[in-house]
Amino acid sequence: MTATPSPPSVIVVFPKAETENRWQQALARALAGRAPRLAVRTFHAAGESLRDGPAPEALYAVGWEPPAKFFERNPQLRAFFSAGAGVDHLLRHPGLPPSVTVVRLEDAGMASQMAEYCCHEVFTLFRRYRDYEQQQHNGVWAELRTVRRGDFVIGVFGLGVLGTHVATTLAGFGYSVIGYSRSPRSLPGIECYSGPGQLDTFLGRSRVLILLAPLTAQTENIIDAHALKRLPAGAHVINVARGGLLDEQALLESLDSGHLASARLDVFRTEPLPVGHPFWFHPKIRLTPHVAAMTLLHQSVEQISDKIAALERGDQVTGCIERDRGY
Amino acid sequence: MTATPSPPSVIVVFPKAETENRWQQALARALAGRAPRLAVRTFHAAGESLRDGPAPEALYAVGWEPPAKFFERNPQLRAFFSAGAGVDHLLRHPGLPPSVTVVRLEDAGMASQMAEYCCHEVFTLFRRYRDYEQQQHNGVWAELRTVRRGDFVIGVFGLGVLGTHVATTLAGFGYSVIGYSRSPRSLPGIECYSGPGQLDTFLGRSRVLILLAPLTAQTENIIDAHALKRLPAGAHVINVARGGLLDEQALLESLDSGHLASARLDVFRTEPLPVGHPFWFHPKIRLTPHVAAMTLLHQSVEQISDKIAALERGDQVTGCIERDRGY
Repeated sequence: MTATPSPPSVIVVFPKAETENRWQQALARALAGRAPRLAVRTFHAAGESLRDGPAPEALYAVGWEPPAKFFERNPQLRAFFSAGAGVDHLLRHPGLPPSVTVVRLEDAGMASQMAEYCCHEVFTLFRRYRDYEQQQHNGVWAELRTVRRGDFVIGVFGLGVLGTHVATTLAGFGYSVIGYSRSPRSLPGIECYSGPGQLDTFLGRSRVLILLAPLTAQTENIIDAHALKRLPAGAHVINVARGGLLDEQALLESLDSGHLASARLDVFRTEPLPVGHPFWFHPKIRLTPHVAAMTLLHQSVEQISDKIAALERGDQVTGCIERDRGY
Repeated sequence: MTATPSPPSVIVVFPKAETENRWQQALARALAGRAPRLAVRTFHAAGESLRDGPAPEALYAVGWEPPAKFFERNPQLRAFFSAGAGVDHLLRHPGLPPSVTVVRLEDAGMASQMAEYCCHEVFTLFRRYRDYEQQQHNGVWAELRTVRRGDFVIGVFGLGVLGTHVATTLAGFGYSVIGYSRSPRSLPGIECYSGPGQLDTFLGRSRVLILLAPLTAQTENIIDAHALKRLPAGAHVINVARGGLLDEQALLESLDSGHLASARLDVFRTEPLPVGHPFWFHPKIRLTPHVAAMTLLHQSVEQISDKIAALERGDQVTGCIERDRGY
């Protein structure tokens, strides 16, 4: 196959054309001052133009969940920028060539949102705000007992940018925070565990387990029936990472047995969560539609444009994925 | 009246005898190592002993809402330590002699609790978590729009220890925070207003108004119908300071007119909030029974014992109230 010379470009690809258009406009503005030789096109519009001749091929792609033929149609692609912190949607794509650099979004306002979501739930649990709502409903004026703050141990599973920020934010409110990561980490004020040999100890101390790890071959289903049993009785689970980390059936069984007290879930194996899924109406589950940390267009576009300009100059960029470890 | 010489002591006075006993035991332990000459007694037990002869008089008092005859019965009293950040319950006591130094509790773990309470409500409002609960209830999967974080201006009324901590904590989550205090303050990252001339401007920008000022002659009823009208349409009010700051009838009218969107109240003119009070079942009011920041026995006793020991040595202590300004 001989590559047809085509104008150098960036291609935007999202499941929804509306999203593609918003990103295309924002990227075009941002790149005009940083890498003016690059045009910015959208994948779905480009697909339609195939009827009129060969589509121009892109050097860089930006987006989420590219369709089956995406990489085949863009053989000149050098790098794919994920529009989110996770890249599992790219790494499981059967057509992803080894030559394409996969770059994840680094923070871009997501860490603060993640901390907000997790703090909100931890405060609700520790301060018993839902019980107070019930008391108001019943016209009851009574102070409710809480455990000592230092005894309310928060376990953060995954200590990347987001996990670290959540852990240190909660520690700032006086909670005892422990963390778990694949390779050893050291964080001020956070007791850190690492490696499979320390997982059970970490879980055994976590009154609230916050999942904030990437989905990889190693983390798929890692929070299964065995892991849930290791949590202290009355523990709570918060999943803001990926549905695939958690065995959904085991979670339901643990909640129904009374071992787990509650779960707050933002991510699911299948999204949108299917109609009729037992999570929807479970009395111990609060769920949100994958909004714990939303990609902020402006901040993301700034970050990605800076990185594209750096690659154009031949510089290195941060946030590149190591394919074999999956993050 | 001639003072009967009596063993130097600390008297503990609370509305409930059970509370007096817990404080008495903790103070006795803490003072044994710091000021061993001082005995620690409780007021209600001492009152009963009057039947057997004159009660020993105390040099220091620790507690909350002393009864009418308290100061008359303790004419040797040098200082009264409030078991809370507020001292309005002491300053309005008709028997409080000018010679008694009134000392408020400084933080003692309350700032963190206050920040937690206020953050919880701000996050709930900004991230629309109650709307997401409703969506779950209806089986709806949909991302809800929010305003830009920087446009969600939080106004903190009162910039003492607690107000400052709440303001800087919220600023750390990326909100635009403005503050108001009687005398000019300067806080990094917080736009500060002060004095009666700037109050309307401050209120006009506050999408969420957090009340965290002491109750004084100047602040009594300061958030009245006029002040509530100055808030932007759709604003929210959080009161974690004193019920007396807020005109309750004006609040209800503003909520019912649709100008205010919601109120979260932890403090009230009359506590416990009377049965049948319209706040209990108002659809736009969430209330809690004065628990936003609970006095933590251990930390408070440590702080007060240190100050009593300092006074015994003739040293100065912080947290003394200036009677004429009321805080």
